[in-house]
Amino acid sequence: MYIPPHFEETNPIVITAILTDAPLACVVAQTDSGLIANHLPLLPSPKGDLIGHVALANDMHGLIEADQEVLAIFRRTDAYVSPNFYPTKQDHHRHVPTWNYEVAHLYGRISFQHDDHAKRAAVGLLTRSHEHRLNGADAWRMADAPKDYLDQMLGGIVAFRIAVTRILAKSKISQNRAPIDYAGTVAGLEASGHSGMAARMTAQGAKPD
Amino acid sequence: MYIPPHFEETNPIVITAILTDAPLACVVAQTDSGLIANHLPLLPSPKGDLIGHVALANDMHGLIEADQEVLAIFRRTDAYVSPNFYPTKQDHHRHVPTWNYEVAHLYGRISFQHDDHAKRAAVGLLTRSHEHRLNGADAWRMADAPKDYLDQMLGGIVAFRIAVTRILAKSKISQNRAPIDYAGTVAGLEASGHSGMAARMTAQGAKPD
Repeated sequence: MYIPPHFEETNPIVITAILTDAPLACVVAQTDSGLIANHLPLLPSPKGDLIGHVALANDMHGLIEADQEVLAIFRRTDAYVSPNFYPTKQDHHRHVPTWNYEVAHLYGRISFQHDDHAKRAAVGLLTRSHEHRLNGADAWRMADAPKDYLDQMLGGIVAFRIAVTRILAKSKISQNRAPIDYAGTVAGLEASGHSGMAARMTAQGAKPD
Repeated sequence: MYIPPHFEETNPIVITAILTDAPLACVVAQTDSGLIANHLPLLPSPKGDLIGHVALANDMHGLIEADQEVLAIFRRTDAYVSPNFYPTKQDHHRHVPTWNYEVAHLYGRISFQHDDHAKRAAVGLLTRSHEHRLNGADAWRMADAPKDYLDQMLGGIVAFRIAVTRILAKSKISQNRAPIDYAGTVAGLEASGHSGMAARMTAQGAKPD
């Protein structure tokens, strides 16, 4: 990924937030059948591996070799940025359109687990995280489902773990702009329905003038 | 990509809408330096090629060979779906969490263009499309910028075209659910702030009971 120095994201809190806010990763691998990509919710384990699972019918666990390097792509909000957003456009017109976005690319070696323990652990980790966030005390639990049904569901999946070896992250959110144009971009994004990106830019704040 | 038959998207209108609504594609390629991925706004040309441009400083145009196959990944809204959304959960509890999303994977052979004509055409196509959509009659135009500035900007980019050879698309939006659970999912997504996915599901409608 092309990352000019001013857009490189090195803050682990921001990188973690990208993974938390946009957990549906796109997992890409080169295989004998060419490039394959699957969209899968992933969660970092306490030691930093990425944990997930796929349907047993998904051929990715057969096409990808053991310990092969894969790329897990996470992307938070994105938005088109018009030169019309910049107040300084009126002064010199030296602006062109661009696109704002925040992404984290996690490279790592993937291993698949077919054992019941690993599958329950992967499903449990994902379920607890997403249910707690959405439903709090009313969170759905695996134990809510009948045992025969849950066994059948677990029989239809494969767990996996990606041991992360390299992270490239990029926050491209107008931080190379003068404060007046930064503020104009926040206002323009708000007005054009991109409140997520506007909120992110407001939280980040413009560079000092 | 794993696509069960009931989630396969074959409607060209829906596929086009995914590209239109979420134009920031992730372009992935296998290179001698491993997998690379760059997030780039792409637009289909009238004859169906994907058109875009990258910074000259982006090494992707050097790492990718002429006419190499790349994968352009487009993703519209996505959302976690809790078993709590399904009214029938109360009856039999035979539900597990899932994730809804809509994606289009366009495979194709990429070629880069360094000539001024191709670069102006790529920038013009993208600018006209996004500015018209955002600003209507007040659209920013390339001619708004001074010639020396625009020449300098065009000197810093490389245009490219992806000749699409294969499309895999997937709409995973609860269309395998009974109408009562489909409606419950729409309501649950609305209540949890995922109005984009809820609107998409409302437009699509549940399968007949």
